[in-house]
Amino acid sequence: MELFHENELLPKEKVFRDPVHGYIHVQHRVILDLINTKEFQRLRRIKQLGTSSFTFHGAEHSRFNHSLGVYEITRRICDKFERNYPTTSPDDGLWDDRERLVTLCAALLHDLGHGPFSHTFEKIFNTDHEEVTIDIITSPDTEVHAVLKGVSSDFPNQVAAVIAKTYPNPQVIQLISSQIDADRMDYLLRDAYYSGVTYGMFDLTRILRVIRPYANGITFDFSGMHAIEDYIVSRYQMYMQVYFHPVSRGMEVVLYHLMRRAKDIYMDEKIELKNTASFLEPFFNQSWTLKDYLRLDDGVLTTYFNHWIDEADPTLSDLAGRFLNRKPFKSVRFERDTDWETVQALQSLIEEMGYNPDYYTSVNNSFDLPYDLYRPHQSGSRTQIELMQKNQTFIELSQVSPIVSSLTGKVKGDERLFFPREITHGFSLEDVNLFENLTKKFQSYIENDEIISRPTHK
Amino acid sequence: MELFHENELLPKEKVFRDPVHGYIHVQHRVILDLINTKEFQRLRRIKQLGTSSFTFHGAEHSRFNHSLGVYEITRRICDKFERNYPTTSPDDGLWDDRERLVTLCAALLHDLGHGPFSHTFEKIFNTDHEEVTIDIITSPDTEVHAVLKGVSSDFPNQVAAVIAKTYPNPQVIQLISSQIDADRMDYLLRDAYYSGVTYGMFDLTRILRVIRPYANGITFDFSGMHAIEDYIVSRYQMYMQVYFHPVSRGMEVVLYHLMRRAKDIYMDEKIELKNTASFLEPFFNQSWTLKDYLRLDDGVLTTYFNHWIDEADPTLSDLAGRFLNRKPFKSVRFERDTDWETVQALQSLIEEMGYNPDYYTSVNNSFDLPYDLYRPHQSGSRTQIELMQKNQTFIELSQVSPIVSSLTGKVKGDERLFFPREITHGFSLEDVNLFENLTKKFQSYIENDEIISRPTHK
Amino acid sequence: MELFHENELLPKEKVFRDPVHGYIHVQHRVILDLINTKEFQRLRRIKQLGTSSFTFHGAEHSRFNHSLGVYEITRRICDKFERNYPTTSPDDGLWDDRERLVTLCAALLHDLGHGPFSHTFEKIFNTDHEEVTIDIITSPDTEVHAVLKGVSSDFPNQVAAVIAKTYPNPQVIQLISSQIDADRMDYLLRDAYYSGVTYGMFDLTRILRVIRPYANGITFDFSGMHAIEDYIVSRYQMYMQVYFHPVSRGMEVVLYHLMRRAKDIYMDEKIELKNTASFLEPFFNQSWTLKDYLRLDDGVLTTYFNHWIDEADPTLSDLAGRFLNRKPFKSVRFERDTDWETVQALQSLIEEMGYNPDYYTSVNNSFDLPYDLYRPHQSGSRTQIELMQKNQTFIELSQVSPIVSSLTGKVKGDERLFFPREITHGFSLEDVNLFENLTKKFQSYIENDEIISRPTHK
Amino acid sequence: MELFHENELLPKEKVFRDPVHGYIHVQHRVILDLINTKEFQRLRRIKQLGTSSFTFHGAEHSRFNHSLGVYEITRRICDKFERNYPTTSPDDGLWDDRERLVTLCAALLHDLGHGPFSHTFEKIFNTDHEEVTIDIITSPDTEVHAVLKGVSSDFPNQVAAVIAKTYPNPQVIQLISSQIDADRMDYLLRDAYYSGVTYGMFDLTRILRVIRPYANGITFDFSGMHAIEDYIVSRYQMYMQVYFHPVSRGMEVVLYHLMRRAKDIYMDEKIELKNTASFLEPFFNQSWTLKDYLRLDDGVLTTYFNHWIDEADPTLSDLAGRFLNRKPFKSVRFERDTDWETVQALQSLIEEMGYNPDYYTSVNNSFDLPYDLYRPHQSGSRTQIELMQKNQTFIELSQVSPIVSSLTGKVKGDERLFFPREITHGFSLEDVNLFENLTKKFQSYIENDEIISRPTHK
Repeated sequence: MELFHENELLPKEKVFRDPVHGYIHVQHRVILDLINTKEFQRLRRIKQLGTSSFTFHGAEHSRFNHSLGVYEITRRICDKFERNYPTTSPDDGLWDDRERLVTLCAALLHDLGHGPFSHTFEKIFNTDHEEVTIDIITSPDTEVHAVLKGVSSDFPNQVAAVIAKTYPNPQVIQLISSQIDADRMDYLLRDAYYSGVTYGMFDLTRILRVIRPYANGITFDFSGMHAIEDYIVSRYQMYMQVYFHPVSRGMEVVLYHLMRRAKDIYMDEKIELKNTASFLEPFFNQSWTLKDYLRLDDGVLTTYFNHWIDEADPTLSDLAGRFLNRKPFKSVRFERDTDWETVQALQSLIEEMGYNPDYYTSVNNSFDLPYDLYRPHQSGSRTQIELMQKNQTFIELSQVSPIVSSLTGKVKGDERLFFPREITHGFSLEDVNLFENLTKKFQSYIENDEIISRPTHK
Repeated sequence: MELFHENELLPKEKVFRDPVHGYIHVQHRVILDLINTKEFQRLRRIKQLGTSSFTFHGAEHSRFNHSLGVYEITRRICDKFERNYPTTSPDDGLWDDRERLVTLCAALLHDLGHGPFSHTFEKIFNTDHEEVTIDIITSPDTEVHAVLKGVSSDFPNQVAAVIAKTYPNPQVIQLISSQIDADRMDYLLRDAYYSGVTYGMFDLTRILRVIRPYANGITFDFSGMHAIEDYIVSRYQMYMQVYFHPVSRGMEVVLYHLMRRAKDIYMDEKIELKNTASFLEPFFNQSWTLKDYLRLDDGVLTTYFNHWIDEADPTLSDLAGRFLNRKPFKSVRFERDTDWETVQALQSLIEEMGYNPDYYTSVNNSFDLPYDLYRPHQSGSRTQIELMQKNQTFIELSQVSPIVSSLTGKVKGDERLFFPREITHGFSLEDVNLFENLTKKFQSYIENDEIISRPTHK
Repeated sequence: MELFHENELLPKEKVFRDPVHGYIHVQHRVILDLINTKEFQRLRRIKQLGTSSFTFHGAEHSRFNHSLGVYEITRRICDKFERNYPTTSPDDGLWDDRERLVTLCAALLHDLGHGPFSHTFEKIFNTDHEEVTIDIITSPDTEVHAVLKGVSSDFPNQVAAVIAKTYPNPQVIQLISSQIDADRMDYLLRDAYYSGVTYGMFDLTRILRVIRPYANGITFDFSGMHAIEDYIVSRYQMYMQVYFHPVSRGMEVVLYHLMRRAKDIYMDEKIELKNTASFLEPFFNQSWTLKDYLRLDDGVLTTYFNHWIDEADPTLSDLAGRFLNRKPFKSVRFERDTDWETVQALQSLIEEMGYNPDYYTSVNNSFDLPYDLYRPHQSGSRTQIELMQKNQTFIELSQVSPIVSSLTGKVKGDERLFFPREITHGFSLEDVNLFENLTKKFQSYIENDEIISRPTHK
Repeated sequence: MELFHENELLPKEKVFRDPVHGYIHVQHRVILDLINTKEFQRLRRIKQLGTSSFTFHGAEHSRFNHSLGVYEITRRICDKFERNYPTTSPDDGLWDDRERLVTLCAALLHDLGHGPFSHTFEKIFNTDHEEVTIDIITSPDTEVHAVLKGVSSDFPNQVAAVIAKTYPNPQVIQLISSQIDADRMDYLLRDAYYSGVTYGMFDLTRILRVIRPYANGITFDFSGMHAIEDYIVSRYQMYMQVYFHPVSRGMEVVLYHLMRRAKDIYMDEKIELKNTASFLEPFFNQSWTLKDYLRLDDGVLTTYFNHWIDEADPTLSDLAGRFLNRKPFKSVRFERDTDWETVQALQSLIEEMGYNPDYYTSVNNSFDLPYDLYRPHQSGSRTQIELMQKNQTFIELSQVSPIVSSLTGKVKGDERLFFPREITHGFSLEDVNLFENLTKKFQSYIENDEIISRPTHK
């Protein structure tokens, strides 16, 4: 590891070709060294979108890929701020470019603590990727920490404070995490590019022209209102069309049951998984260390699933096969208030057909997902988008945009019952006679992919 | 698995969003069922470009992704042929649309036998992805075979014959494998899209307008000459800029040495890797079956590498770390004829510095890679691109295109010596004194990233 | 002119390269012959967006360009309808492909009657481009009529009936003119492409997948709801950002005053314009024929403006120079209800500065422009967008989309007062002393580009 | 006109949306004022590609549009030079940013002197757009001159010197005019964008990364060799596919004959065109002034053509109709050396059919057009493309690129005989009997769109 001084610039800017931003421009040695750490390289082996590539086959990109993009957008914003809004006196609410390096590092590293299939993994093993990110940055054992410490002894803590949202300068925090931050802007554009949908394609260039710092954080010129509005709509469309897609969620339900089954077996002192899941053991035992965590990636998990197909436990083997070979659970929508009794009836039917409902049915709400539609009323004033008018006063976005207003706090969740596809789409020949009546009864509760509370024939 | 009749169409066309082609359109049930087989789904876990994503971080797409694209281009060509060049009598050299299904299946499945990091894997374990593809198609144990057999008992053999290039109709073979086939057209466009370079962006729509069948295979209207020329240049540029990139090759050299070291250890001491490479054992033993082969994917190999970092063997551990954490070997160009003595001198220097040259240096020629620049003279008349003039006579492309002529049989290989980067870029502090003189001597042989046969100061 | 039979196909499809759709595909001889008529070629000399290219310099495309695009989208929809929804019995509400030719011709010709700067021209000379379109199609003197008559003697009337919305089949009418018709879909995409904004980039491919015929016209599968929603938002954004842009409207106001001044002079028996506006004379005289109309194009008008710069009338000369040399009137927003008195005060100030307010001020509402937002409730059921659910029932779009609902009838017009830019931005040196006080007074009524009813200092 | 000081920056950067470059960024007041002059605004009324939009209907963009693009590329290069290669001592061959303003002005204004359909106009009226550009810049009567003079009294001369290539700093000249200058880079990208072909899409971003100043002008890092190679191929493809397209040339031949006929008539009979071509009179008289020149634009000429359709002279009327209504002359290729006798025989046949060969046939070589391929050897060292190696030595591009070498001086011109389309494609019915034998004889000389010297049947 080379030694360097704070803010040291590379003798020549280094670039990485990027399909979304053209080039990622690296000017500081510390950024290049962070990219070359093993903790950051690990992100190459973790998909950005988890199970979404089972629906949108193009979206196979990694968190490494995305992290570079977040860095790049942040860098471009810093350039704009430095040129157009440089501070000239303390407390003038403008940009102090001495914040650049800590901002760039936080942008680059903000996803460092993600594990494989984070959302599901965290639910089962009670981990928290944000805490892990902070651990990696502050632990004396990591390469990332060593690089950051080369800047100054307190620098790792500063970067961690940005992640933890305790950093004193709200501008820095909001660039990394707010309603329109570099993270969201990159993932909307990138996920759209890779999945091949057009919905995420808002006008980044225009937004970069109107974003600006002020005393309490980040705001936007009023003249950019329609560009912001367009961004909010893109975000909404990406959630509705891509992130909440029922097939991806059907794969996530399979994954969740699979990993829970493995954990249950392990806890029941069935030692079978010892040789085929050694990196997972500390998590089953709830005794994991940072080093254990950093060993995990998508490939490790799918390799274990690959082994589990041969395990004696039929549920584990079956679910492992469903995940590896892409057999998503099917789903139907329902309203929790009016259809709940029917849902329970359907789960009973599934059990009658021989499935353990604990592992073969699931109720899943899209709000379970990392959901961040624009809801200023629910989340406190911090998350509102403020526009700065010519006379320097602010106006909240939904006050001037009927579109944004229509999306504010009103979006309904999409609650679904998940179950094996063969229940409605037919079993192999020998089982048909056995379950024919149950299947028919099951189907009578469903119309237009929705549960109807009062089926025609009972 | 549903039963179906030959050529059975889905009640409603099914589409997959694709970032390169907009949509992949599936009309036959057999195509949908093939996509859903576990052998085809495995391709999701194998990167299309092996180590290239270490250089072009955007290029993380899988062979699954590419295979759908090859299918789609083939489908579009079949549509054009059926509409514009339908056969009306045997031997009229036009298109018989009864060939459509076998052509589509072969297009979809042509990469089925690829393993993880195929190029390197095949060199070490003496496997052949094309043979494996044929095995998967014809073996009675695979889901792919079962689906194909649903069409007719001989259908698997027909599809295999297209892959093996023994199928009677040369049009079908050349659509899948020739100088301008659906495979190459998709990968150039796709690899360009994902890597973010523009070089691969030839005009597919125009080529689809001028491609046509004739008695001996596939040809192109003379009016499309410049579009074909543009394709050839794109191909050349992609090889020069992306596929032969020295950094990707530097990672491939690390991978090669790593896997060879593992094999050598296994052969010598057997026991060591048992728990951490069980899926690889049959390959070390040269006793693998198709089932063994189909268990492998990128994640399995990187998981083993992950384990090997903890192995006692320092070379294995070191190389595993270099691969996982992206520490590519550096390289310098040389001319085999004039610089060979110097190369050997450099290898000796590397050995003096304590590296085993067997695992830490490598001579690598870009022609080792799956290389298919347009070289009609070397490859026989089959691989030439023929243009059909208005009077139905043919003219070979390089006769009318000075650009193509300039690329024909003249492109020189790029031979390089690979070695650990620290040899020229500095060791950690404690070693500096030790190797200072050797490093200086090493560097005196190199100028402008090339080996110079007579260094200025010896 | 070649003779042909109804529906005669070209021996080989002819294509035109198109930047928006890739290629325009022409398969019928009658379409090719229509494109080659002089009436259709005239559309090359008329800009699609009138004065918008003064704001978005890229948007210089012609109505010829757009008309080909409308034809192409219609052709693609016909292909989809023919493949997926072919009629099998009368009144089944599906697509009768015998309607294809009349639909394609109407699509191609729908803008045929547009003159230069249509919106302004029509206001001054009381013309109507839709009536002229019908005239051109039905008049025995035009090449277009001759070509259409070649299909059948009644064919021109049929095409005209589609334009006039009296054609019996509502599917045909709605493909050319409805809330989501081929016309709007092309112009949104094309205007966005040429102007360089991204807002118009909705997902045409997806919409083409869900559009379908039914008994009363055109509808969309419910599964495409989000794609339709996205289209509505794109349309809204294009109006807000491009079509209603104040600078383009400021040029249109100059144009309107210029042409009105020319007409006023002519009517006052000032014969000066005889030699420099001969093609316009029949319009000044209100005695124009179709032949006169077809002589006009953008170049004719700007050539006359070019001559008028030398005319003795100072207002005519001045306004001609402002238009040719792009000196748009500036504008400020106001609320008609609350600010009207102030507006009149401002107009008086402008008159005090020596400007004839008749030619140098204007009040203009964006909804005076020939565009509309989606307002189902205002316009009767014909213009609603209906979605077809799985059970074949319909649901109106704004019922299921909060975004569309928010745009329905709630967006207000943008009313502005226009005046010469120098009034607020300064006169040349010699005039400064003269008007200094008036200018200051004028500016005191304006804050943040809006008229304030109670200025601070009077 | 505002007064300003040299290099005065706008208080806030002004941008223009541009479909090719995203935004045009204007930072200097003088640039904004130049754009607002009437001489520069005139360029809005002159198409960039003359008759090419008759073939590629999308390519209707103006020279105004392109001129902004050339300015923007130049501005970006200046930014790169200022950041990466700032001069520190005289004669160090690096970039002196005091050259920025003169460079930007020359870039913006380089096409100012173009008239309507320049290529043809210049041949007939013996004008020279480069001389006119210099005139506009240096004439005390123009707004452009007044703006430039506001910078300093000598500034107009400096800008003119760049255009005239007499400016002392070769870097400035070569940025505006050399083998890879801002002019060519913009028009290739822009013409490709507007025409809808992909061939012009080289990698501008990469070229901007490797371009650099040196003592004798502009060079490129050797590492960018393949990007430069790609640019050369794009240029070649655009010439072959777009600029040299036979249909556009067929329209240009019609235009040439039309304007020559008008001139001939005027010289013979003076009076006829007086009322319908007043702006052209000074050119017929060879007595034009700069003011006369600046009155002309595409619309003026087409308006006159529109009038000429009614003129008594049948040739003038006929050719005017052919041009306005897009009836291009057809053409066949021939080799001047071997086919010349046959060409003359064909011209005689055309005369026999009643056409005046002076106005109805033409021999035209693509190299007569104002475009060039890369031919370093023919044009002297000034026009070579030099690459700078790591050791600061230069190597000429075609020495290291077989592709470029293949295009260097080896591509032949495309010589064609043009004639009215009806000669080979049939006359109206009544004439058929009259010319049947002549037409057959004519066609016997042609095969595959080429003249054959020894026709099969005479």
